[in-house]
Amino acid sequence: MTLMKLPNLPARLRPLVEEMSGSRIRAVSESAFGKTGLIPLWFGESDRVTPPFVNEGAKKALDAGHTFYTPNRGIPALREAVAGYVSGLRKRKIDVENVTITASGVNAIMLVMQTLVSPGDNVVLVTPLWPNCADAVSALSGEPRRASLTAVNGGWKLDLDRLFAQCDDRTRAIFVNSPGNPTGWMAKPEELRAILEFCRKRRIWAIADEVYERLVYDRPVSPSLVDIATPDDPVISINSFSKAWCMTGWRLGWVIAPAGYGDTLGKVIEFNMSAATSFVQHAGLAAIREGEPFVAEIVEQYRQARDLVTQRLGGMRRVRMARPDAAFYAFFQVDGMKDSLATAKEIVAKHGVGLAPGIAFGPEGEGWLRLCFATSKAKLSEALDRIEPALS
Amino acid sequence: MTLMKLPNLPARLRPLVEEMSGSRIRAVSESAFGKTGLIPLWFGESDRVTPPFVNEGAKKALDAGHTFYTPNRGIPALREAVAGYVSGLRKRKIDVENVTITASGVNAIMLVMQTLVSPGDNVVLVTPLWPNCADAVSALSGEPRRASLTAVNGGWKLDLDRLFAQCDDRTRAIFVNSPGNPTGWMAKPEELRAILEFCRKRRIWAIADEVYERLVYDRPVSPSLVDIATPDDPVISINSFSKAWCMTGWRLGWVIAPAGYGDTLGKVIEFNMSAATSFVQHAGLAAIREGEPFVAEIVEQYRQARDLVTQRLGGMRRVRMARPDAAFYAFFQVDGMKDSLATAKEIVAKHGVGLAPGIAFGPEGEGWLRLCFATSKAKLSEALDRIEPALS
Repeated sequence: MTLMKLPNLPARLRPLVEEMSGSRIRAVSESAFGKTGLIPLWFGESDRVTPPFVNEGAKKALDAGHTFYTPNRGIPALREAVAGYVSGLRKRKIDVENVTITASGVNAIMLVMQTLVSPGDNVVLVTPLWPNCADAVSALSGEPRRASLTAVNGGWKLDLDRLFAQCDDRTRAIFVNSPGNPTGWMAKPEELRAILEFCRKRRIWAIADEVYERLVYDRPVSPSLVDIATPDDPVISINSFSKAWCMTGWRLGWVIAPAGYGDTLGKVIEFNMSAATSFVQHAGLAAIREGEPFVAEIVEQYRQARDLVTQRLGGMRRVRMARPDAAFYAFFQVDGMKDSLATAKEIVAKHGVGLAPGIAFGPEGEGWLRLCFATSKAKLSEALDRIEPALS
Repeated sequence: MTLMKLPNLPARLRPLVEEMSGSRIRAVSESAFGKTGLIPLWFGESDRVTPPFVNEGAKKALDAGHTFYTPNRGIPALREAVAGYVSGLRKRKIDVENVTITASGVNAIMLVMQTLVSPGDNVVLVTPLWPNCADAVSALSGEPRRASLTAVNGGWKLDLDRLFAQCDDRTRAIFVNSPGNPTGWMAKPEELRAILEFCRKRRIWAIADEVYERLVYDRPVSPSLVDIATPDDPVISINSFSKAWCMTGWRLGWVIAPAGYGDTLGKVIEFNMSAATSFVQHAGLAAIREGEPFVAEIVEQYRQARDLVTQRLGGMRRVRMARPDAAFYAFFQVDGMKDSLATAKEIVAKHGVGLAPGIAFGPEGEGWLRLCFATSKAKLSEALDRIEPALS
């Protein structure tokens, strides 16, 4: 247990939320508040602004007066566009009834958990993992159960037996983030098939967080549960406009799920945020319709960045890492490092480079650091020069 | 209990969410899907588009590259602007530490409930009330307890004894929406004082939903708990850009609370939606800085609309209503009407006017209908002509 710092408040807050640790990435970034000249590679965000054709989509929608409430599940045109986009990307026909628009990927995770998790239920998560997924389960008084990947030579491997052993009769879902944040790990098609089989048999949901599906360097798109599921399978796929189209600030995402699920999702959207921003949904249309050259361009940029970072970090004495085939993170093990939070704070203070501590992604991440390489080669080279003394 | 229609799904959903009834307003609007020429007065939304200076604020922010994640609690400039705005509106100095930006008013309600409600806790709500407030409590496995206003001559009166009698040792908060949706009821300063005293003594929170505070016709602004609270009082005020600046589609709101509360709110924002849309926050700045003439203009429009609607409805034989001094709804009792949902469906089918059924706001609302008068006099006159036969 962490020590609880109770604020001086006039009435009680919910103990479970009070005891949540808060983001350890933010703990590092806040430790460097006001520091100039630093290179921030701690957040999961490109340093490129949103491309102009997406901005144009928003502006045109504003000019056309799209400033009113939309349906909870999103404007029909965007739901149709997403259905077409996913159908083209995957080996399956996705219908508009399978699509619900959300106000970001993390919003979709929270909404989905609200439709599944009663107090005492559990969700089994493949870890290390972005902490928000477990926190959403906890906030509903559910139990997030961790099924760790196995670290092998600086990379990560899934142990299906360990994953399935974590499930019991209170398990409502298995949560798989592939390609994974922070690991860059990608589930193999046969692993996804085994997970789907298991979920079918147990009649529990497989939740696929696929926000990095386009940022893949060894094939066109990451393997997905959507590829192999039938329309009636218990698969919920969560996605976002943030990573593929550099739209982190826009807060727009979507869910693909069996047709009968959408009404329930629409109900919880009503009392969570009553739909995504209207003209942002229109901008999402522009992203999907006109965005393919942009996606190809950033994937090529990130591929080169990945190669640079892998080569440079690989040459540092204390670092162990495998070249990631997806996402935009170098997640690397540091020999002899016992406290990743302290190390990340020290690195930003001494060397002016912002990294995320592995402990931010769960106890399995202790001993590791995460570097987001979605920036220019010049900045990356400078950052790597700076941190080399600390890691050699 | 309503009959549960179980969708044909491959795995179980959460029973509590499955059993939620869904919006009864939407049940009416969906019953008229595809009907042409109807006048929709069912939703709580003006038919005016957002004013140009707000759109301009968003466009400038896009051009300036404000397309990245913002801090969870919002951009400092907007938090400062809201602090200044509320300080000017109320008799108290509000500091930037008291302000948190949210992705709409309903989003703020859900976030606040997450910081207070453990399973089995209850929140006591003054009703009839917009259903999302109770649903947010239910979604956290809490118990929404209803303390009904008393209907008196077509208007509503607060019974403080009844309100306080609903509170017990599992009560975490009293929720007061004043000016109220659907009633237009406004709490008197002495009533708010009594509620604050009670909450202080019991060490529970007073949550004030004040999204209609500017739409007031008998004084400059509605009485508020913020007027009378000290910085350390257990008061959480929830607000929105939707109503005062015609920004329903934008999804932007704020919370005013004791300084120590903000960090906890920031933690839940992280795994709910990780902040409001970046450039929408910049547009909010424009609304606050340049919006006062616009607010004055729509208040004058709504005042005239209110007078027209009150006079016309008051002349219909079966209608009983008091003139509302706030918000933009005529909430009226219909003599002999037993089923407001059926009546609202019948009115839209036969007469082409969309009204919200009173039952949508709880059992206390049965026998009533809600008409949103945030539209032109011409449309209102036409709508009133059409429904007169049904109500005379």
